[in-house]
Amino acid sequence: MKKVLFASTALIATAGVAAAEISFSGYGRFGIGYLEDRAQSTTVTGAGADGLMGTADDVSAVSSADTDDAILVSRFRLNIDGTAETDGGVQFSARVRMQADENAANGEANNAKLNGARFSVIYGGLRVDAGNVAGSFDNLANYYGNEVGLELFAGQYSGVDYSFLSYQSGDSAGSNAVFFQYAVGDFAFGASYDQAQVTTVAAGGLTSTTTDADRWDVSATYTFNNITAAVAYGQTDGGAGSDPSLTVLTLGAEFGDFSGTLFVADDATEVAATDGTAWGLSAAYNLGAATTLLFTYGDGNADADTQEIAVGAIYDLGGGASLRGGIGRNDCDVCEDRIQADFGAQFNF
Amino acid sequence: MKKVLFASTALIATAGVAAAEISFSGYGRFGIGYLEDRAQSTTVTGAGADGLMGTADDVSAVSSADTDDAILVSRFRLNIDGTAETDGGVQFSARVRMQADENAANGEANNAKLNGARFSVIYGGLRVDAGNVAGSFDNLANYYGNEVGLELFAGQYSGVDYSFLSYQSGDSAGSNAVFFQYAVGDFAFGASYDQAQVTTVAAGGLTSTTTDADRWDVSATYTFNNITAAVAYGQTDGGAGSDPSLTVLTLGAEFGDFSGTLFVADDATEVAATDGTAWGLSAAYNLGAATTLLFTYGDGNADADTQEIAVGAIYDLGGGASLRGGIGRNDCDVCEDRIQADFGAQFNF
Amino acid sequence: MKKVLFASTALIATAGVAAAEISFSGYGRFGIGYLEDRAQSTTVTGAGADGLMGTADDVSAVSSADTDDAILVSRFRLNIDGTAETDGGVQFSARVRMQADENAANGEANNAKLNGARFSVIYGGLRVDAGNVAGSFDNLANYYGNEVGLELFAGQYSGVDYSFLSYQSGDSAGSNAVFFQYAVGDFAFGASYDQAQVTTVAAGGLTSTTTDADRWDVSATYTFNNITAAVAYGQTDGGAGSDPSLTVLTLGAEFGDFSGTLFVADDATEVAATDGTAWGLSAAYNLGAATTLLFTYGDGNADADTQEIAVGAIYDLGGGASLRGGIGRNDCDVCEDRIQADFGAQFNF
Repeated sequence: MKKVLFASTALIATAGVAAAEISFSGYGRFGIGYLEDRAQSTTVTGAGADGLMGTADDVSAVSSADTDDAILVSRFRLNIDGTAETDGGVQFSARVRMQADENAANGEANNAKLNGARFSVIYGGLRVDAGNVAGSFDNLANYYGNEVGLELFAGQYSGVDYSFLSYQSGDSAGSNAVFFQYAVGDFAFGASYDQAQVTTVAAGGLTSTTTDADRWDVSATYTFNNITAAVAYGQTDGGAGSDPSLTVLTLGAEFGDFSGTLFVADDATEVAATDGTAWGLSAAYNLGAATTLLFTYGDGNADADTQEIAVGAIYDLGGGASLRGGIGRNDCDVCEDRIQADFGAQFNF
Repeated sequence: MKKVLFASTALIATAGVAAAEISFSGYGRFGIGYLEDRAQSTTVTGAGADGLMGTADDVSAVSSADTDDAILVSRFRLNIDGTAETDGGVQFSARVRMQADENAANGEANNAKLNGARFSVIYGGLRVDAGNVAGSFDNLANYYGNEVGLELFAGQYSGVDYSFLSYQSGDSAGSNAVFFQYAVGDFAFGASYDQAQVTTVAAGGLTSTTTDADRWDVSATYTFNNITAAVAYGQTDGGAGSDPSLTVLTLGAEFGDFSGTLFVADDATEVAATDGTAWGLSAAYNLGAATTLLFTYGDGNADADTQEIAVGAIYDLGGGASLRGGIGRNDCDVCEDRIQADFGAQFNF
Repeated sequence: MKKVLFASTALIATAGVAAAEISFSGYGRFGIGYLEDRAQSTTVTGAGADGLMGTADDVSAVSSADTDDAILVSRFRLNIDGTAETDGGVQFSARVRMQADENAANGEANNAKLNGARFSVIYGGLRVDAGNVAGSFDNLANYYGNEVGLELFAGQYSGVDYSFLSYQSGDSAGSNAVFFQYAVGDFAFGASYDQAQVTTVAAGGLTSTTTDADRWDVSATYTFNNITAAVAYGQTDGGAGSDPSLTVLTLGAEFGDFSGTLFVADDATEVAATDGTAWGLSAAYNLGAATTLLFTYGDGNADADTQEIAVGAIYDLGGGASLRGGIGRNDCDVCEDRIQADFGAQFNF
């Protein structure tokens, strides 16, 4: 027997009546993905001298094998949101996401996975998230810009290598962190803190130590007319070594059917191959009623920074469905350049 | 606080209004399952000479222990379907299934699992599935016939050993494949293609190789009056060895309260113990308003082909619930024969 | 596109019309948890002399590292219930729970998990559960009493060490067992049986053996006016050794804004460090319209029995949301005492 949940337009209007509710939303997408010289890398591990798996003297080896360049790509995403509103108008919500992606390395299917939960309190312009949260960068206006392709395989941020706090889907539970956001007039401020620890078990398995790897970041956003400017800074506790950090400045603008973004970052990863400046830009243009053209470019001055340049298009089919595709080129100073392209359908539900 | 989703009858009628929706459906079943000489087989693995787990020189050992013949059997199945319909009437849908089964080897419980996602496009008589799909055999009319028992433990296909492309539930993500189906008048045609690769890591873990294991199959079905005839052929790329293949012919008919199926297959597995012809038949008879009697028989001429013969019954309790049970005998030329039986309740939701 | 499920009040009224339905319910909670001297224990394992993982000669080592005393604590719980009612008024239902908790050892996030399924048949005062069920203790009136804290970190049962059949959430599939409950007038009776087996693989991996570890328990409950008295007894098949058992007597009473419970148990674990008598009590007092004060105390006379004493409060925010917190002290004859406290918000959906 089939149970049906209606689309939201009708029901949302009356949702204010309900003190508590559970809602579902998501999308499906599938198509063909091409990546020049696609390969599968496999890491195998062994117990090492102490005969115990998971200790500091474990041994490992990595190998790589060529796989098919063209594979079936897909994603199923379902957001599960539980919400409650107090008598005083404070909104509480909790989200878990169910997601299935293809294995991009070899084109095989993966099981759908549940991620870590995110909890929110919202009151007026204030929002506090806890758990598997997005930090100031992941939430920053125009950080991602106009990404290209069914799979959003290219973006203006491609030169950034700093690992900032971001919302995790699929296999990863994400960090257990806190994010604050406050919006007042044309301004918005964000800040996050991730209390992280890395545990290492010494050879022999009888002693283990925990090292702090805390991360924090802050952001400010200003919107004037059709332009949004945003800046963010974040830093990770590097333990005995230097603390990696990231500074990002973004600019976004809309002029009728055209929208564009600019991106520049100081990517202080404290690793020579990726340390330096990163920059990029993106643009979208609505060509008639149903078609959107997209362009993005990202780069960085470090040897291992990925340069991405790509063009794409979205054709709206109505009912939340669209055809999407893109083609681009990935390169870096120390890699072979590779052509990437995809095409397929996406539909919201 | 409890949220309720109504049964579909009322809501389906208006579902055409909604451009996008998420629906849930499924069933639960539980009861007692008996299998003569039930045993649990355990495979343990070790790293082998190179000290690395997951390489070609891994070692393994298999052992078996007797467990209780009578156990609690159960299944919880929930299909999660997201759908969208374009302005042009093309229907897109995506499914992930949540399923929990008991561990049949020892009668312990298993966690519910999410399988790999299936995506579909449907327009008129044409249907294209991608991802974790059922192929031409799994979709073939009367392939399974009237299976017997609460757990459907016996079927007319029991002599078939070829591993065809089938929809996977539970732990398995399934294959990432494509299935096409086209129906026109009394005819229907199907075809599937599964681009599969097997990766092997050499001892030492520093090199890995990928071998193609692509599968394809085609089918044709013709319905005339109360009779349906179907034929399907499929083949798997065997690499350096011969390519295993399967040819199946089925016939199904309904005469009032009686329905029956016939099954014959050329099971060319390219393995002596299972290579040969397989055949079977099944029947169902509605005895009064609420009771259905079932019979099935399957066999094959290879030494390791399983012969299954079973009788069963379904008693409808109304409201989508029923009592179900069956008893049968499994045998093969090189095995001990075993009696299998089960009884319990199933209810749809 | 967002799909909304309304809160149940309106819909439940008409639910009797539907023969089958799927419903969702749950809660979110998050806050700060403090535990003095919080530490993470890590167990690592190796293959041992036979070079095979999972056999009787596996070796292991345990280590412990200090982690942050104050961490972000949280839980996301979603119950998924499928139900059907027969023409004769017999109700069938099946439940799977999706739950995400923080990792209490180190404050990191965990993925949401699905547990094992529970199936029920309900007819009049009779209820039969199968699968991942709660047994007679887990279902016993006033067994848990008034637990304290956002995370319910303290309870009157703290001196009990016997492992009884209980409903499992998260990673654990639970036992595959049966529970019967029958209510008639002021009396209720319960009984459960868990057919459990433990498989051990001998060194070398070529032989394995299965040992019975069956559990059963029974209970009786009597309610007279505002007082409920309950007694339960359960036993586990200890194989060659003695059979551990547990006897529990509880008493609960409500007088206007006050409710209290008493608890005494014979905890015959057959292990010297935990064998003996356990006792406890708890109380709750409604202070005005929105505030509830809580107190609990649990203890036992064995050396390793945990003594818990804690006070807490709940402040109702309306709409199913509340603020909750508690502070207490955990101790035992052979441990360092530790202060535990938490505070946060909980909201039902």
